[in-house]
Amino acid sequence: MALLKTVRSIEELRGLLAEPRAAGKSIGLVPTMGFFHEGHQALMRRSRERDGAVVVSLYVNPTQFGPSEDYLEYPRDFGRDERMAQDVGVDVLFAPPDEEMYPPGDTTLVEVTGDLTARLCGQYRPGHFRGVATVVTKLLNVVQPHRAYFGEKDYQQLLVVRRLVQDLHLPVEIIGVPTVREADGLAMSSRNTTLTAAGRRAAAVLYRSLERARELAAAGASDARELLAATGEIIAREPSVKLQYVELADAATLAPIDRVTGRAVLAVAANVDGTRLIDNIIIGG
Amino acid sequence: MALLKTVRSIEELRGLLAEPRAAGKSIGLVPTMGFFHEGHQALMRRSRERDGAVVVSLYVNPTQFGPSEDYLEYPRDFGRDERMAQDVGVDVLFAPPDEEMYPPGDTTLVEVTGDLTARLCGQYRPGHFRGVATVVTKLLNVVQPHRAYFGEKDYQQLLVVRRLVQDLHLPVEIIGVPTVREADGLAMSSRNTTLTAAGRRAAAVLYRSLERARELAAAGASDARELLAATGEIIAREPSVKLQYVELADAATLAPIDRVTGRAVLAVAANVDGTRLIDNIIIGG
Repeated sequence: MALLKTVRSIEELRGLLAEPRAAGKSIGLVPTMGFFHEGHQALMRRSRERDGAVVVSLYVNPTQFGPSEDYLEYPRDFGRDERMAQDVGVDVLFAPPDEEMYPPGDTTLVEVTGDLTARLCGQYRPGHFRGVATVVTKLLNVVQPHRAYFGEKDYQQLLVVRRLVQDLHLPVEIIGVPTVREADGLAMSSRNTTLTAAGRRAAAVLYRSLERARELAAAGASDARELLAATGEIIAREPSVKLQYVELADAATLAPIDRVTGRAVLAVAANVDGTRLIDNIIIGG
Repeated sequence: MALLKTVRSIEELRGLLAEPRAAGKSIGLVPTMGFFHEGHQALMRRSRERDGAVVVSLYVNPTQFGPSEDYLEYPRDFGRDERMAQDVGVDVLFAPPDEEMYPPGDTTLVEVTGDLTARLCGQYRPGHFRGVATVVTKLLNVVQPHRAYFGEKDYQQLLVVRRLVQDLHLPVEIIGVPTVREADGLAMSSRNTTLTAAGRRAAAVLYRSLERARELAAAGASDARELLAATGEIIAREPSVKLQYVELADAATLAPIDRVTGRAVLAVAANVDGTRLIDNIIIGG
């Protein structure tokens, strides 16, 4: 296996990619904020299986964190990330400094408006999806990949990225990759490492609650209030898990729904030990 | 000379450009709203001189017009535009319908914030530069040109485009092309055709006033108030020319200046016969 190359500058990255691009190889991009886990590696493997060159970007993007959020505390371990990327055959790790992504005098924003960014996490993280849309647009233009891979764990982010790619006519295919879970069902997340042992055990209630709603829906329940009440009731059994929201929405538009008639997303956000965790499942359709 | 091809769909356009792109030819884009004049043709010629394939987009972008502006009245003559593009050797005229540029459910905006869009015309056309930034980003992604050509007549627009290209890391070189003027100095504009004969004669005062300021600056005047007063005084001699603003700003940032110490832009906007006209010159530096 070729050795992973780590680059910090856009110019160097583009130079590295000129050869595979000219040779007609497909380029895959996995955008990340680092502190890798198996979820990230699943994204990298999907690209490794399909693309001639696999680029992973590692950039903790300041503009998608609110002033009271965990930008400074976001976990980082660059050496470990390099080894984990190398282990799954990544070709290039692109780890730019802030001034490379946001050049001096930068004032340009990309924003997806409407339900896609106003609903779910958008209600609690003002500006978050604008930061995501802006940095993803930058990364897609920097790398110019044929495909880019995003985890379904961040379901709303995936929809926002699909929307901006379609609206701005970015020439890239967006691939959603299923959430990778721990043995007890907890969705893998870099933020899980910040939990206490007790918090880590309690956090598994989130997926259990979603699974319970899925069972009810499979048994014929379709009323949103009923499904949400059942989900919330299970989460309430773990007092250390502070529910922020549990919502049922149209899986394509994120518009709220009263009843499951087609594909719907059941999404949850909660705070555990001061760490914000999210999860979701698709039901119906 | 090869015959001009007119295409309406992004897919067809990309198909047409695949061959010259694969052959390593440079692709030039001239974004326009049609109703061509010699200013547009100067942009097309610049691209024709340098690029292997010249694409002109013709799209009257609704999102850059305010609710009280002239979107519906904007002059259009497609047959004449095709002939004028053919005359200067354009390869492809891309004239998409609205649903091609703004796909169903489109909600994505690109916005350059700060002085670049808040000053000069930005004070009088809220949302205009957001519409420009959004459609230019779309067009650059659709065509993926090596170079794109913009007139210096729309100086603020040129700066906004340069800024978003730099910030979003769009892989394109932006070329500014000097304003083409009528014999009496009036900057060419599609909107000039909507003037009455008297309005057309009166409109030449705009450039005369800018020229007067340039003479004063060349003779050593540098105080903004003095230069602006001289400009405004000349314009006031034509009562049918209703001044909207005349301002002196840093030519790179559009920040207001009290004194010309480096490159400055002297920009003017006025209404004549209900038509809004703009012009500018660079002084100092």
